Amino acid sequence: MENIKAIVQLLRDVKNKRPLVHHLTNYVTVNDCANIVLALGGSPVMADDAGEVEEMVGIASALVINIGTLNSRTIEAMLLAGKKANQLGIPVVLDPVGAGATALRTNTAGRLIQEIELAVLRGNMSEIKVIAGIDSRTRGVDSADDSAGGSEIASKLAKRLGCTVAITGAQDIISDGSRTGLIDNGSPLLAKISGTGCMVTSLIGCYAGVTSDSYLAACSGLITMGLAGEKAAAGLSPNEGIGAYKVKLIDEIDRLTPEDILREGKFESVNWDCERKQLAIKE
Amino acid sequence: MENIKAIVQLLRDVKNKRPLVHHLTNYVTVNDCANIVLALGGSPVMADDAGEVEEMVGIASALVINIGTLNSRTIEAMLLAGKKANQLGIPVVLDPVGAGATALRTNTAGRLIQEIELAVLRGNMSEIKVIAGIDSRTRGVDSADDSAGGSEIASKLAKRLGCTVAITGAQDIISDGSRTGLIDNGSPLLAKISGTGCMVTSLIGCYAGVTSDSYLAACSGLITMGLAGEKAAAGLSPNEGIGAYKVKLIDEIDRLTPEDILREGKFESVNWDCERKQLAIKE
Amino acid sequence: MENIKAIVQLLRDVKNKRPLVHHLTNYVTVNDCANIVLALGGSPVMADDAGEVEEMVGIASALVINIGTLNSRTIEAMLLAGKKANQLGIPVVLDPVGAGATALRTNTAGRLIQEIELAVLRGNMSEIKVIAGIDSRTRGVDSADDSAGGSEIASKLAKRLGCTVAITGAQDIISDGSRTGLIDNGSPLLAKISGTGCMVTSLIGCYAGVTSDSYLAACSGLITMGLAGEKAAAGLSPNEGIGAYKVKLIDEIDRLTPEDILREGKFESVNWDCERKQLAIKE
Repeated sequence: MENIKAIVQLLRDVKNKRPLVHHLTNYVTVNDCANIVLALGGSPVMADDAGEVEEMVGIASALVINIGTLNSRTIEAMLLAGKKANQLGIPVVLDPVGAGATALRTNTAGRLIQEIELAVLRGNMSEIKVIAGIDSRTRGVDSADDSAGGSEIASKLAKRLGCTVAITGAQDIISDGSRTGLIDNGSPLLAKISGTGCMVTSLIGCYAGVTSDSYLAACSGLITMGLAGEKAAAGLSPNEGIGAYKVKLIDEIDRLTPEDILREGKFESVNWDCERKQLAIKE
Repeated sequence: MENIKAIVQLLRDVKNKRPLVHHLTNYVTVNDCANIVLALGGSPVMADDAGEVEEMVGIASALVINIGTLNSRTIEAMLLAGKKANQLGIPVVLDPVGAGATALRTNTAGRLIQEIELAVLRGNMSEIKVIAGIDSRTRGVDSADDSAGGSEIASKLAKRLGCTVAITGAQDIISDGSRTGLIDNGSPLLAKISGTGCMVTSLIGCYAGVTSDSYLAACSGLITMGLAGEKAAAGLSPNEGIGAYKVKLIDEIDRLTPEDILREGKFESVNWDCERKQLAIKE
Repeated sequence: MENIKAIVQLLRDVKNKRPLVHHLTNYVTVNDCANIVLALGGSPVMADDAGEVEEMVGIASALVINIGTLNSRTIEAMLLAGKKANQLGIPVVLDPVGAGATALRTNTAGRLIQEIELAVLRGNMSEIKVIAGIDSRTRGVDSADDSAGGSEIASKLAKRLGCTVAITGAQDIISDGSRTGLIDNGSPLLAKISGTGCMVTSLIGCYAGVTSDSYLAACSGLITMGLAGEKAAAGLSPNEGIGAYKVKLIDEIDRLTPEDILREGKFESVNWDCERKQLAIKE
């Protein structure tokens, strides 16, 4: 309950402080990311030229790097922006879209992780396994693997990278190495529309822009998306489909209140017990 | 009826096999393409860097190349991806957006056609005429010409290029040189929103990912779009416009069933009679 | 009333003549721009490669340059396209997105203004102040300043640049140096979705494509957006948010009639009185 209360406060903070979230992101879902940031209460800015990213990140509250349509030009800009953010103490959230699908993506994700200090790494299980060095093949940009063991993977990778790792799936898993949480909000429809992964990363960016606790920022982003996804699904008429669902998803982010999170957030903290090799629910 | 039954089966196959459709496409309508592929049941991936397109196409079931916002960097990547797809036997669907509007587009379309073996070439009448070498000027990216003779043009060009040619318009025309079909589904509203041409090309890509019969894949894509376009138009309230129409179009792709195609698909096979210089309806 | 009647005629002209509006714009809101141009009755085309922009602008009725996601490659193309448009007498509308946020944006806006003769410069107050050389800092791409004095700023800058300057905000201000107008249509919701600035610039591009009076073109674009924004807000259900609002905005542009503008347009001409340092309402 403590965590939920902290998340509720972060939602209020985003609405009051309107954090500017600088994105270097892909051109497929960039409009969705801009609108979901606005819907939550943040202010999005997209800029990817090496000639301006350092200056832009300097006025931002958080930096989101998404490699969904990376190219040699933007990779350099991502590195510049990320390093500048590190210098300035601005949190960096990385979405390694499609890591594992091609060497360019895997290597770029690796390079970004090595050269930039991340606040949050957010991916699906395939992507995170690839980054963790666990054998898994990524099929395009969708996750091919939702197997168990996620809490352990997240926790160990978080410890190794010194950041929060968030793995999205039917159940979301978040860990900063010491704290690990599970979120059971969401809807199967979220996987049926393009951009939900990118959008939740942008939401995490908003929250990271108002707190130095990146674990809470990640939990907040995931719970926000999960809850809005549930509400959007509940509001769907029988004659509607994923077109309307996407519109309603943005509506529900826009309409989400602290009370919604308090009442309907399904978050539990867990502890990966290394000796017993099992999870112990703490809360 | 035989063709309709085959199309129905392809729709089922897309939903069961979830073909991964690799796109090198424009940044204007790319989000629409991603969502329509998901709505049909496929899995979209967008990647355009020369450093990864060959690897990405290697895990795909089909490749869609769309020159809508081409540039020198992406043209090279299109050629690389297309040639690799040819080597691997992965079908390539080309959308020569705006061929005829500028020399860069006309020449790039020509170069792609020359260097890559296509499964399907999908354009509007202006674009196809330009590629066929028939005099026609393209006005931007919208078709300026819906004149008759389309079946002959499609059939002859298909024979020459050794691929299926699909010409979209009020009546869609598809030919692989031996078979020629006409589709009478659709709605005038489809021409009023951005991206329907690109989206139907992506639908063809999905179908091409589950069959080696590119003629049927093209027919399936066009009939799917036409039917969804009709249903979306029928569902429009008097106080709605093209904003709502686009949302409903995705909804209707998502909701389209094999039964819808069986019941409402308006497809007829025709035969271009070279001696009589007229069309003979076969079915 | 005279101006309103002229605006009404321009709306009819756009619907009859379907001006082709060539865009070099950002990848964040490009799809919205394409759809709003179609909704109004124009025909959008997006092309940004240096190898084709001069040819493309040659078949266009207006050119829109938007620096929202500028990079070194597209900046060169913007300059080429703009200069060619000037040679051909095709009106150029510039949206200096984020001028003031980074030196690259400020300098690029400055370079475009210096090297290209504009028909209309459209920005928010922050951006226009930066371009006018008045001290103001831009926070990302949203305006940080809606202070008074806008009419004076617009009028003086318009005189200096020899073009129409349009400043969007709660009250829109338009001036060509001799005529100055204020528009009171609009809705606070317009600032809550991504792309309304870019979209209104595209609307101005449509109108500029059917008249040589760039002042009227700018007024027409702003009043169109304001009215559609009002109507979309009025049509919003209590359970809807900014997702639905954006869809309805396109609907209302599509449905907007000359009668709507006559009945509900809130336009007044003003005169900046240099001696008294105050505005005198003329109409």
